[in-house]
This record gives sequence, structure tokens and C-alpha cells, in this order.
Amino acid sequence: MALCGALPGRRAGSLAPRTEGLTIQDSDPSEAHATLFTPGPVPIPRHLLALGNQQPPYSRTREFSQLTYSILEGLGYIFQTAGPVMLLTGSGTAAMETVVLNFLEDDDNALVLNAGTFGQRWCDLCTVHGLSHESLRLEAGEDLDLDSLATALSNNVSILFATAHETSTGELFDLEAIGRLTRRLGILFVVDAISTVCADHFLMDEWNIDVAVLSSQKGLALPPGLAFVAMGDRALDRLENVQPRTLYFNVREYLNDQKRGQVPFTPATGLFLQLHQRLLDITDMTLERLIGQHQEKAHDFREALRALPIDTLPTRPSNAITAVTCGDFDAYEVVQALRTDFGIEVAPNSGALKHRVFRVSHMGEHSPEDSTSLIRALADITARLSRPEKAATGGVS
Amino acid sequence: MALCGALPGRRAGSLAPRTEGLTIQDSDPSEAHATLFTPGPVPIPRHLLALGNQQPPYSRTREFSQLTYSILEGLGYIFQTAGPVMLLTGSGTAAMETVVLNFLEDDDNALVLNAGTFGQRWCDLCTVHGLSHESLRLEAGEDLDLDSLATALSNNVSILFATAHETSTGELFDLEAIGRLTRRLGILFVVDAISTVCADHFLMDEWNIDVAVLSSQKGLALPPGLAFVAMGDRALDRLENVQPRTLYFNVREYLNDQKRGQVPFTPATGLFLQLHQRLLDITDMTLERLIGQHQEKAHDFREALRALPIDTLPTRPSNAITAVTCGDFDAYEVVQALRTDFGIEVAPNSGALKHRVFRVSHMGEHSPEDSTSLIRALADITARLSRPEKAATGGVS
Repeated sequence: MALCGALPGRRAGSLAPRTEGLTIQDSDPSEAHATLFTPGPVPIPRHLLALGNQQPPYSRTREFSQLTYSILEGLGYIFQTAGPVMLLTGSGTAAMETVVLNFLEDDDNALVLNAGTFGQRWCDLCTVHGLSHESLRLEAGEDLDLDSLATALSNNVSILFATAHETSTGELFDLEAIGRLTRRLGILFVVDAISTVCADHFLMDEWNIDVAVLSSQKGLALPPGLAFVAMGDRALDRLENVQPRTLYFNVREYLNDQKRGQVPFTPATGLFLQLHQRLLDITDMTLERLIGQHQEKAHDFREALRALPIDTLPTRPSNAITAVTCGDFDAYEVVQALRTDFGIEVAPNSGALKHRVFRVSHMGEHSPEDSTSLIRALADITARLSRPEKAATGGVS
Repeated sequence: MALCGALPGRRAGSLAPRTEGLTIQDSDPSEAHATLFTPGPVPIPRHLLALGNQQPPYSRTREFSQLTYSILEGLGYIFQTAGPVMLLTGSGTAAMETVVLNFLEDDDNALVLNAGTFGQRWCDLCTVHGLSHESLRLEAGEDLDLDSLATALSNNVSILFATAHETSTGELFDLEAIGRLTRRLGILFVVDAISTVCADHFLMDEWNIDVAVLSSQKGLALPPGLAFVAMGDRALDRLENVQPRTLYFNVREYLNDQKRGQVPFTPATGLFLQLHQRLLDITDMTLERLIGQHQEKAHDFREALRALPIDTLPTRPSNAITAVTCGDFDAYEVVQALRTDFGIEVAPNSGALKHRVFRVSHMGEHSPEDSTSLIRALADITARLSRPEKAATGGVS
């Protein structure tokens, strides 16, 4: 029964990285001083990081239940809902799949507001689960025309999947107007609010949103690993009629266990401690003030951008990120220069937007110096790339 | 667009804890000095906890990919497999559901080796996903009779779901013998190895195990939040024929992305840093030595138990936990006394075993003083409970 130290097929050669697919950058993941302007993970406040240095608690205790109750109350506040919120260990996509598995009936016809990568994810989920759906496709940075939406919804649609803020383009949608329409038509309104809650106004109940999903590493400024599904009465009614083919994503089981402050399967208890503190912080400072901070950072950044030969993409920009269009410059080259020459991480785009657009996140904790450094770096890089000899050679892909 | 600070239905009264269901204990989750002898979370070594105090890295970088390659190599070592291992953000049950969704074909007939709570979970997953299955039920602490298994397998079974170690009873199964049988019969052998890998010998390839699942908070002694699915060639062949109805649990997508050191959805990147270091530590110390440490702790604890009026449950005990049977004492009363009077957390059982059995984990980092304190506390409690006036009143439930 000897243990093998070196196993065949596990050598470095057999795991050679491929070059296609996801856009990968060069940087040091253990480099604590890289300044992150990426939309998740975002820079986490130090006192929250420090809680990651604590032994995670055993969860089957009354005190852990109390922690959970407090978390649930805080989540209701940030979603602005009186309905229950499911606590899931997983990514935002796990929460989206949970919605598709638990709230859809066989005779549903879905419409997906598809304005980019994250709108497309709702389509992919519908396809994987064999659900009848149509897609209302928007160009990158294009706002939604409500008349077009009303026309699309009139085609026997029973459920609308939307993205509050398309993180790939920075476009924020008018959920209040959409919610008035869906409620009038009796259509279930499901919103991916992953990069909106805490960064932009999001009034779930007041705006007639029936289901909303969120993850921990955006406006909440926590490490990734937790995701949340909030739901109103219309969604709860549907839960009764659906027999979901899932154990890990079964909403009813979570809501039952959460009544006693527990979840059905071992959760990321370490992250619970950080989430609990973060929600206390937000309650203390108020959600209004937190959103105001995002608004201010986004505003200041965009004001400073006006002096530079680059522009912004969205028609209706969020506070969460700024999607920057590069005109004559290669966006991916700017991203690489920020990283290599200035130790600053911003998010490149993938696919058709890779060389046109990059994204700067305003979520998480940035000092005024961080923001100034970013603007100075962008000024330096765009000046350098504007030199005639460089412009003549074109962008590097 | 005012934000509501206090929402209806979110008051403490509406979230009153229920008393039925899961066994909940009194203790302080933020109490760093409670000594954990629970099977997950387990006491985490300090230098690994300290990594939780770091800003989690942005994952779309080449350096994060290198971190992932290193993690994959380390996971191959602890599973003792040359096959790929899927990196999932979720609990062990998420990994089990992933197996059921990705490796089963419509005409499969499953047999579940069901020796307790975690064997039952395979049954529940088969039921939820409408899969044809039979169950071979064992009593708590009963060993498997290989002839009975052979008979059950001969009934047109194509896949066997087993639990390496039934964490609810401490019973460890002879996977090597089972694997010889399933391989001879051409049956796919799937093992929940969640509380076995790193604690007891587990030779995936040598023992003909086709699929194995693991989570981060047991023998790996990390916070909960990550889970793993390891698979051999027979399982990989099946992947080609199954069109899984899942996005978040789609094994093929993970394996494709992992070839370039990425995963399809934002992972718990903070835990990746801790996992990476832990796997380096294990490679340095060797798996043999780590298993030896568990063996030694389990042995010493059981030797010390011999002086006390309590016994152990399993026929074939693991190194991971000791399931203690209490005879005339109420097991749940012992658990509560350990917590209240000595600041020690052990794991109660639920259901029929609640008042008969409790469990002491040997996973994670315990000092010799921790172990001595536990034995002294048990001596004190059993002596106290043995006094005639106490015995006459019976156990407190």
C-alpha cells in the first residue's frame, strides 16, 4: 500500500496552458500591493480581511444560528426586500442556476434581456435546462427601448430574465420602468443584480422585482464564495408548484433550514463572519451613503477621463464600473501596460470588445491616491501610445 | 427613491428559531479559543489561517493559472490519481451532485452502499434526479459483507455509489476489496472520500476507484467552501456520452478551462491561496506522514478511552473520527457538558443515534494538551454522570 510521490500524467508537461479562450493577464496573484480596479475580487477593507485570519466556527450551534439571522436581516436591507434571501456557497452563476431550477414551470415562456456576457448567461441556463426562451439582444452600451421590450413581452411571455447592470459593458438598466411593465402584464421579473446591489440604487420590492441574485465579491467587497437569491411573494408562490431536480440548489430546503439559522450543507463559515461584519458596517453607515461613495468615485473618475483621449461606452452608466472605449488605441495594450508598468489591475474585455474596451471597477476600497495613480497611469500610457511612430505600427494583440 | 432602513417582515420576531430538525448546540461562533474536535470545520493551522488575511487575487491572470496548475498537481497526489480533478466552489454535497449529473447515463442501474447519513445522501441524489437505484443498507457501525455486496451487484447494477468512511458512525470500508469486485464486474465505482483523503489511506487508481469526491474542511484542514471531483479513464469515457443538465456543475467545462489554469465561474480565490499552501505542506511532509499523524491521534485517544466507562461504535474504525457509544449515559448530555463546562466542541449525532453516540474528530491541528484536556473532561463528565443520584434522574434530552 505504498503512496506514489510522482504520478504519471501529473507532470508539468501534461498541463501546458492553452492560449485560446479566456483572456489571461500576467501578474502575481500573491502580490498584495497590486491595486485592483477589477470587478471582483475587489479591494477588501482591512478589518474584513482580518476576520479571514480567524478559525471558522462550527456551524451547528445556536450562536451560529444567531449570526445567520443577523446576516439575513442585513441582506434584506441591502436588497431592500421584506422577502426571504437564500444563502448559497458558490458563485453568482450558481445563484442564477438556482433561479432557473426553482422558479420555472414547464409551460413558461421566458424572454431574456441580453445585453452582453451576463445576459447571455441567462440564455445559456435556459438552453441547458431545456426551457422555452427568446432573447432581446442589445448592442454593447445600448440602452433598452421600453416599447421594444413591451412588444417582445406581449408574445406570450411569462417570465423576464434581466441583468440590472451588464458588467461587461457598464450599461445600467431602468429596472423601475421594466418592473412597472412586467407587473402590469403579470410577468415574473427576475434580475441578476450581481454588480448592482450596494453600488447603485436597487429597490427590489418597490420596483416590483420578484427574484434577484447577488454574489459576495462585488459591491459587498468580500472574497468570492457566497451567493444570494432574494425572492418576493410571487416567486414564493411558484416554489410550491415546482419540484426542482436539484439537492444543492433546492430553495425550499434552504428556506426551511434558514428558519432555524442553518443551511442544509456545510457553508463557507469563514465568509459568514466577514459577511456579518460587512452588513453591520453597511447598516451603520447606511446603504444610501455606500451607494453615494460608489457614485462619487465613478463621477470623479469620469471627470478626470475627460482630459484624456479615451471615452466611455455605456449610454446609461452604472456606479459600479466604467467601461472605457479606446478609439485609436488598443484596449488590451492599455490593460497590459497598466499592469506591467504601474502595478494596476483593470479588467480586459473578451470576444469582439477585447481590443476596443476595458473596464475600471469602482467597487471595494480605493484610496484617493489609488484613483489618482490610475488616472496618471492612463495619461502616461495614452500619451505614449499617441506618439506617431507607435500609432503607425498599430495595436498589439 | 428613498431607502428603507427597517423593513416589514424582517424583524427578529418573524425569524424566531424553530426547535425541530438539526441538532443545534449553544456556543459562541466568534470564540477563537473553543477547541474543535468537530469533523469540519476542523482546527486550521495558524500559517494557513494567516493567508485568509490576504487580499484574494484577481483570477484572470497567468500567475493565478500557475497557482491552479500547482493545486491540481497537489490534488492528484492526495487522491493518488493520474486523472484530472475538478475544482468546485461549494460543499461536498455539491461535488456529489456533480457526479450524479455528469457520469450517469439513462440506462444505468445504481446500487448505493448506505451505511448512514452520508450513504443516504447518494440515495437522495439519485431520487431527485430520477435515477434507478437500489440501496444496500447497513446498521450503524456494521462492516460490509463482501458476499452480500457481490449478490446485490449481480442484479444488473452498472454503477456503485459508496462512502469511504461514514462520517456519522466512523465506519471505514475496505475500498480495495470493493474496487476489485466492481472492476471485475465492469461496474463504475464512485466513492465519497470526503472524510478519508489525508486521514486514511486512499489509493484511487490502485484501488480501481473511478470517481471520488472531497471537500476542503476535513483532512485538508482548510475552511469550508471548496470541493473536488477526481476521475479516472472510465469516468472520462462516460463524460463523452452524457449531456449534463447543468451549467455550474458541468465537469467538461471545468476540465477544459482548467487546462489553462482557470475555472468557468469566479472561484473562492481566497481559499485557493490556502489550498495551494496546504498542498505544498503535504507534499513536503509526505501524505504517508500526514495519515500517520491522524492514525496516532486516533490510536492515542482510543487507548485513553479504555480507562473510561464509554466505548467505540465502528467495527472497522477510521483515523478521521472516533464515534463514541455512551451505554448508560446520554450522549447528547456529554456533548453539552463538554461545550458548557470545558469549551470543547465535539459533534453530536442526529436522529436515532442522538442520545447514544457522539463523535470526536482527529482531523486538523490539535496539540497534545488539547487531546489531554478532552480525555480529562470526558473522565470528569462520565464520573459525574455515574453518580447514583444523577443516574436515577436519567439523561437530559
